[in-house]
Amino acid sequence: MAEVGFLGLGIMGKAMAMNLLRHGFKVTVWNRTLSRCDELVEHGASVGETPAAVIKKCKYTIAILSDPAAALSVVFDKDGILEEICGGKGYIDMSTVDADTSSKIGEAIASKGGYFLEAPVSGSKKPAEDGQLVILAAGEKALYEEALPAFDVLGKKSFFLGKVGNGAKMKLVVNMIMGSMVNAFSEGLVLADKSGLNPQTLLDVLDLGGIANPMFRMKGPTMIQNNYSPAFPLKHQQKDMRLALALGDENAVSMPVAAAANEAFKKARSVGLGDLDFSAVYEIFKVAGGST
Amino acid sequence: MAEVGFLGLGIMGKAMAMNLLRHGFKVTVWNRTLSRCDELVEHGASVGETPAAVIKKCKYTIAILSDPAAALSVVFDKDGILEEICGGKGYIDMSTVDADTSSKIGEAIASKGGYFLEAPVSGSKKPAEDGQLVILAAGEKALYEEALPAFDVLGKKSFFLGKVGNGAKMKLVVNMIMGSMVNAFSEGLVLADKSGLNPQTLLDVLDLGGIANPMFRMKGPTMIQNNYSPAFPLKHQQKDMRLALALGDENAVSMPVAAAANEAFKKARSVGLGDLDFSAVYEIFKVAGGST
Amino acid sequence: MAEVGFLGLGIMGKAMAMNLLRHGFKVTVWNRTLSRCDELVEHGASVGETPAAVIKKCKYTIAILSDPAAALSVVFDKDGILEEICGGKGYIDMSTVDADTSSKIGEAIASKGGYFLEAPVSGSKKPAEDGQLVILAAGEKALYEEALPAFDVLGKKSFFLGKVGNGAKMKLVVNMIMGSMVNAFSEGLVLADKSGLNPQTLLDVLDLGGIANPMFRMKGPTMIQNNYSPAFPLKHQQKDMRLALALGDENAVSMPVAAAANEAFKKARSVGLGDLDFSAVYEIFKVAGGST
Amino acid sequence: MAEVGFLGLGIMGKAMAMNLLRHGFKVTVWNRTLSRCDELVEHGASVGETPAAVIKKCKYTIAILSDPAAALSVVFDKDGILEEICGGKGYIDMSTVDADTSSKIGEAIASKGGYFLEAPVSGSKKPAEDGQLVILAAGEKALYEEALPAFDVLGKKSFFLGKVGNGAKMKLVVNMIMGSMVNAFSEGLVLADKSGLNPQTLLDVLDLGGIANPMFRMKGPTMIQNNYSPAFPLKHQQKDMRLALALGDENAVSMPVAAAANEAFKKARSVGLGDLDFSAVYEIFKVAGGST
Repeated sequence: MAEVGFLGLGIMGKAMAMNLLRHGFKVTVWNRTLSRCDELVEHGASVGETPAAVIKKCKYTIAILSDPAAALSVVFDKDGILEEICGGKGYIDMSTVDADTSSKIGEAIASKGGYFLEAPVSGSKKPAEDGQLVILAAGEKALYEEALPAFDVLGKKSFFLGKVGNGAKMKLVVNMIMGSMVNAFSEGLVLADKSGLNPQTLLDVLDLGGIANPMFRMKGPTMIQNNYSPAFPLKHQQKDMRLALALGDENAVSMPVAAAANEAFKKARSVGLGDLDFSAVYEIFKVAGGST
Repeated sequence: MAEVGFLGLGIMGKAMAMNLLRHGFKVTVWNRTLSRCDELVEHGASVGETPAAVIKKCKYTIAILSDPAAALSVVFDKDGILEEICGGKGYIDMSTVDADTSSKIGEAIASKGGYFLEAPVSGSKKPAEDGQLVILAAGEKALYEEALPAFDVLGKKSFFLGKVGNGAKMKLVVNMIMGSMVNAFSEGLVLADKSGLNPQTLLDVLDLGGIANPMFRMKGPTMIQNNYSPAFPLKHQQKDMRLALALGDENAVSMPVAAAANEAFKKARSVGLGDLDFSAVYEIFKVAGGST
Repeated sequence: MAEVGFLGLGIMGKAMAMNLLRHGFKVTVWNRTLSRCDELVEHGASVGETPAAVIKKCKYTIAILSDPAAALSVVFDKDGILEEICGGKGYIDMSTVDADTSSKIGEAIASKGGYFLEAPVSGSKKPAEDGQLVILAAGEKALYEEALPAFDVLGKKSFFLGKVGNGAKMKLVVNMIMGSMVNAFSEGLVLADKSGLNPQTLLDVLDLGGIANPMFRMKGPTMIQNNYSPAFPLKHQQKDMRLALALGDENAVSMPVAAAANEAFKKARSVGLGDLDFSAVYEIFKVAGGST
Repeated sequence: MAEVGFLGLGIMGKAMAMNLLRHGFKVTVWNRTLSRCDELVEHGASVGETPAAVIKKCKYTIAILSDPAAALSVVFDKDGILEEICGGKGYIDMSTVDADTSSKIGEAIASKGGYFLEAPVSGSKKPAEDGQLVILAAGEKALYEEALPAFDVLGKKSFFLGKVGNGAKMKLVVNMIMGSMVNAFSEGLVLADKSGLNPQTLLDVLDLGGIANPMFRMKGPTMIQNNYSPAFPLKHQQKDMRLALALGDENAVSMPVAAAANEAFKKARSVGLGDLDFSAVYEIFKVAGGST
């Protein structure tokens, strides 16, 4: 089995690299703080001193980094990917970044003759550990096919979505629907409560019907308890709503429900809820005193 | 086992009465068109000539009728329930009616000393046949407890929600969330399409993630094919949005996402989509020519 | 000049009856608290002991009462209008009431052979005193023409809008536009403020441009000072938004901007602003702490 | 009186430069198509061969150009303003451009030691000819004061709004309010029409009341006649809504009414109305067939 490079050993990356090792892949890892590589070495990984060194050694390299700045840094900085990427080598960025960042990286890789794939994932720590991520890949088809054995280990399903940018867009569309849903859900919980119904009963009824879904099941009980420890921070959800609306603006798509939900998230930011979980938008519907 | 009355042998009622017989209940049925009773008689049911006759014979009687007019008629008209209901007897209306109709019936029953329960259900033909309905009961607690063995046969779960009206309200809240969701879903499908993503792929991605739900799974493929044969007509969905918003108005609950969704449904009605399935709201987001 | 009846001497009614007297009309007045008639008697008015007595004496009678309950009471209660109205006599209700109340009164008058006109006004105390009201009349055209000399004294302009109900509807449409405007205005004031612009300067700029209007001119300065002493209470404005949206619902008119404005007014009610001026909706846009 | 430079002799610029000449200013003009200078020369203007030449000759220079590209070109291109601007000289850009363009120009001017003022105007051809513009100036206060005699000739009122960018922001806020208003107005016209009221009568009623304004007065009659020859193209209005909402996003200001209006404008763009007047948003509310 070919040598696979792996950059970025945060919560997600570590679980993913471990899965590759467990399934027999030969993996060369790198992390900004190199000591985080130790545990993987115990399980058979090699270590690359720099991103460039990993690229040099491997046919293709996967990265999953914390944000656009980190994603750009491993490519463009000294000892970065650009120094060694070349014809025949592939680079797969699984970080969640905006379409612009993705395009910038893709163009730089291509200018050196390399192959590029953006492949953001849906799913967090647990699915990463269980190899149950959903992978939204876009870019070089050949590289997608080459990486499929790895994707099969990392995720329960991978999609090839066409040209670079489509992975990021798909994530935006999904998150936009999710953002509108959590607003509708919040409105329903408040309406139930103010109308003399038990919100917990609403959760039970919802969970037995046609719109039952994991998010309602997971967030409902914590929302009722005003517990908003951030799995996905509200300010990031609102940013995704904004970007989805901007994508709609480019394509002349009217999205009145998403727009109303976005304004609710902005309201939530304005009262200081931006760093809490996105389900904290519930709070702005609850605020109430009398009802003249 | 006590004799149970059963009024209304439409698609839902017939399946439900059959389930009761199958589980050993003694059932006396009535239907406006009496010939519809025949099949049930073959399975052991008795027949009552009028609603009043059924009430007279049974400890409690279940009804599931097509609309508020029919629900009122079996109670108030000649040979109706009011003629025989009395202390110790119960009447359970499982029709989907508005809170006002429900209250009117409840008060009339109570004035005769009878017990009343409203118990609208969530679920349609298939769950009715399979005994998998969700039952939203409200009214006389003692009657609820008396009817529990029947509810256990008819549904996978029943809830007692307190005073009469709460069953109808709970249904409104659920349908309001559903109506906002189908709008968010429609916006997402159009956004995907106009942004160069495959709507079918969006469905696949959604179905693997945290907001996967039966409605998206069932409606998505038909929406993409512009198939809107009505399971739940759009005009009824819009009416429920209106009633939910009115309930919010009474209780000073601001629901901007539901309001935006309601206006989209009204738009859909205005272009003649009211008799199609509620998922036809998708059509109004799709209309588009150029994009200057 | 014919004898004109006048029922209701509140702030509006007293000013209007006085104007009629000043312009040479012979006026017979009635008020629930009869002592309020004294000042008008000094200026030449006669007094009727009951609404019925006024109707009996006059060719046509104008009423301007505080609310629907009062409007119904003078018609249907003992010694009310129905006791004396008959063929050849007219009744003009200038109260602001809903279309249902108006229709109920109109039908009762018609059943006795009388003529009916609803004629709600736009304008408050000052325009009433100055004879500068705008009169939105609907109902019996012949009665409108008979009353025109009086309307010319009471208002700067009167409209005949067709069948009963149209006067109330026209008022709703106007108030709906006004309600959306005061929301847009509030959003603009907050946006200016948070963006580092002086809200007072925004008022000055607005007042010099194409959307300059008396409401912005009058409400702007008080809104900036958080002064919301009620000229038109927010809860009444919200009620008119609700009724306008209901009218749109009946006619399948989608009104997303009005719906968004209505939800903002509901939010304002939910935090206890319902009894303040409708411009207090500004407060809900202002609430803000940080902005993560 | 000092020599004033004037760049850009389009419809607005020509009228403005003519006003300056008429009031005794010595003006040196430049236009990309130099022949457009002839008429001004007949009224006493001098001609500069290039923007740089005008700057060199004059204490301060006013520009009013068609779009951001033209505004940037006269500054940064060969023979542009940067070649001659220096300490003691001022440059006043009265074009309508975005805040970024404005800042870019301002910084370039400042880096050469020059003074800069952005000064977009509210008002079009007629106010320009009549010296009745409203001037929204921001940037160097000293330059504002130096230019006041010119502003007094060009406009009925000028404002100094602080730092560069504030002029553009103020215009956005005003246009955002206007955009929401034209939507509310459209909804009202359709509601009137569908409810059996005459839209022309609504215009008459509105024009007599507290929300009467020049825009309703001017646009109402043409909207009713489906006449949308563009004074301000819908796509530009929508762009301003988008930018105002983005400004709100930066500052965590929730603007649900503006957001709903923006989606309506996007809908209008999606059906090909982008090049018509912004009042054409009326069309999307009108579309209707039946009303099930």
